[in-house]
Amino acid sequence: MTSNAEDMESPQKTAAEQQTPLFKDTSWHNTRDSIQNHKLSVGGFVLVHAGAGYHSESKAKEYKHVCKRACQQAVEQLKSGALAVEAVAAALVELEDSPFTNAGTGSNLNLSGEIECDASVMDGKSLQYGAVGAISGIKNPIMVANRLLSEAQKGKLSAGRIPPCFLVGRGAHEWAVGHGVPPCLSEKMATKFSLSAYKRNKRKMELAEKMDAGRNQTKKRRQSSGNENGSGILDTVGAIVVDMQGNVAAAVSSGGLAMKHPGRVGQAAHYGCGCWAENACNMNPYATAVSTSGCGEHLIRTMLARECSAAMQSKDAHQALLEAMQNKFISSPFLASEDRVLGGVIVLRCCRCVEPQPSSNIQGALVEFHWSHTTESMCIGYMSAQDSKAKTHISRLPPGTVPGQSLAIEGGVCRLMSMAE
Amino acid sequence: MTSNAEDMESPQKTAAEQQTPLFKDTSWHNTRDSIQNHKLSVGGFVLVHAGAGYHSESKAKEYKHVCKRACQQAVEQLKSGALAVEAVAAALVELEDSPFTNAGTGSNLNLSGEIECDASVMDGKSLQYGAVGAISGIKNPIMVANRLLSEAQKGKLSAGRIPPCFLVGRGAHEWAVGHGVPPCLSEKMATKFSLSAYKRNKRKMELAEKMDAGRNQTKKRRQSSGNENGSGILDTVGAIVVDMQGNVAAAVSSGGLAMKHPGRVGQAAHYGCGCWAENACNMNPYATAVSTSGCGEHLIRTMLARECSAAMQSKDAHQALLEAMQNKFISSPFLASEDRVLGGVIVLRCCRCVEPQPSSNIQGALVEFHWSHTTESMCIGYMSAQDSKAKTHISRLPPGTVPGQSLAIEGGVCRLMSMAE
Repeated sequence: MTSNAEDMESPQKTAAEQQTPLFKDTSWHNTRDSIQNHKLSVGGFVLVHAGAGYHSESKAKEYKHVCKRACQQAVEQLKSGALAVEAVAAALVELEDSPFTNAGTGSNLNLSGEIECDASVMDGKSLQYGAVGAISGIKNPIMVANRLLSEAQKGKLSAGRIPPCFLVGRGAHEWAVGHGVPPCLSEKMATKFSLSAYKRNKRKMELAEKMDAGRNQTKKRRQSSGNENGSGILDTVGAIVVDMQGNVAAAVSSGGLAMKHPGRVGQAAHYGCGCWAENACNMNPYATAVSTSGCGEHLIRTMLARECSAAMQSKDAHQALLEAMQNKFISSPFLASEDRVLGGVIVLRCCRCVEPQPSSNIQGALVEFHWSHTTESMCIGYMSAQDSKAKTHISRLPPGTVPGQSLAIEGGVCRLMSMAE
Repeated sequence: MTSNAEDMESPQKTAAEQQTPLFKDTSWHNTRDSIQNHKLSVGGFVLVHAGAGYHSESKAKEYKHVCKRACQQAVEQLKSGALAVEAVAAALVELEDSPFTNAGTGSNLNLSGEIECDASVMDGKSLQYGAVGAISGIKNPIMVANRLLSEAQKGKLSAGRIPPCFLVGRGAHEWAVGHGVPPCLSEKMATKFSLSAYKRNKRKMELAEKMDAGRNQTKKRRQSSGNENGSGILDTVGAIVVDMQGNVAAAVSSGGLAMKHPGRVGQAAHYGCGCWAENACNMNPYATAVSTSGCGEHLIRTMLARECSAAMQSKDAHQALLEAMQNKFISSPFLASEDRVLGGVIVLRCCRCVEPQPSSNIQGALVEFHWSHTTESMCIGYMSAQDSKAKTHISRLPPGTVPGQSLAIEGGVCRLMSMAE
């Protein structure tokens, strides 16, 4: 058991959730069986992350606080009857607005000292998707992705043109402003912390390049990579939501890797890689939603969001996620050349279930949720619409394990109740 | 049988290939069984497409001619011992340089009258991937994607930074120029045809918007979409190659939809959607390569390249592709709101096979290849390193069928021979 309870809000075993022990998947069934003792909740559920990467103890309070606020924003939407996709966007705005996360305000600066953001959102009901990549001068990139999604739902543009689902760079900015999203001075999105990190990284890079200059050119890259701790701050943010009707939605937003080349687009804008949401249907008994975080290139090449979503259709979700993270991510043939594979996911699945009690006209839904990461830590928060406040938690790899080669996996269950139709 | 032989180069049943009849998958086995009568070829195989869309009879000659030249470029590379990924890039450069294709020179202009291109390449051996989106001022976008791929193979950048696999917009242009790819004036990439098409489309759009202005706002979009023939010119180009060592590679390049919003990125830059290549491995008996064409948004949301690649691992490739195109594309739940689903694919799979003759120290490989499309037509070409010239073909939907709701599927087989190791 690695509950790693933090001072601020310890993830106690409340009526609405239970932690599952690390790697002990047999306990999952026990957790599921013990659900009859749980408090019943109404109105939906949200799980958010403030990134897989490294979260210092000194900033744990801030990271958890923003997760808590993001959960509350989503739950407020759910309580007012909003759909999952609206609630997930509300959570993302809160996560983007925090100066402590690498998304929206406080995003990593690129090589040129500029902020370029990626974000995407997927609606499990319509299966529509909206994404922006390398967008500058917009305070909340998720709002542009969300607007692309809702515009696409309106059907074709004039003269039968197909509406875009993915816009990048200056064109994305212009589209956003043209659709009423206010522009924002890039300087306003930089923080004291992001600016000093940029200066520090720039010095580090220059030093590394000077050192490399004296070495054999062919050995240069391999050596410089060996000197690095690959699991730096990669704190992309994201959220997944299930609403009262069993609709799911997922979203993700990121400032991208520090010192990235201008124009670089990571997994947060990449279909199937940053987020995924699919309602239950004939083919899939479970509604599933996933949001990822970590090194964009690793998450793109393994299409981790979609892989984890597919895994969630297995009987034993915990075991399936464990195997997906191990076989489709850490040991993926697509990342065979990487010494460390860095990423994290939050996942949920939801299915309707028959309730023997307390009354026959009540339908229930069971939400199973997990987080898993190969980075040193991952900050998450979750809340059902019936909870008075969110649970937050900084998950850390077990002591002695190597980031990028090992994983942590935890989760819980939550039961939603609604009146039968 | 819809061979639709064109005047210039009729796709006769030569020793190196056979057409399979439309929808009659039982015949596939017969084709495979009859392979003993085929001419043996050495050095690899290439299949290219000049797009799924509409290819007028008046320009059939030019479309086929560029496919032929692209095949020859790839085969020249293969004969000189190049890897599949190098050969596929050579084919793409030829396809991009044609003023008749919607890629590189002659690309569709966007809403602002600019050219912005998408391109990507995947190497089945390393499973590396490189892509550019909405890039301007570069004559051959595929060369930038290819350079991203080869740079990523060198390992990490200074200070342990992870090299990008996907760059967009101005940043992509700057990276390209910084890596020795010469810039090109955008005006030089526009053609008389693309400029007149832009003017025509602009008038059409303005007219449609004027007509819409008088209508009920809520009905506007649906009505204007109903007036359109959705299967316009969508002639993205692509190629797939298998080399002498059984390595596969795939690439795709596109100027995108005509009158697209600036910054719009289509499937040609999207991992899993525009192209896919995976060498054979323990898990996959076949090496597979796929390149797609058509409406980017449809191809993205169905991840068609990767879906078709996965289908190619089935016993009966023809039947599996037919089912993939029907179930994962035309009838995909991800495109349930679309009245017409527009796209095309070229696919190949390759496996080593035991040769009873002519000599025990000769190893063989069997290449099965197909093309399939839901658009009115698709122009393809193919060639093995042993052929003196490429076969080219404009495949058309059977008469009376509806583009976007029906499909055409054809293919052939080719046997490659090489000395045993």
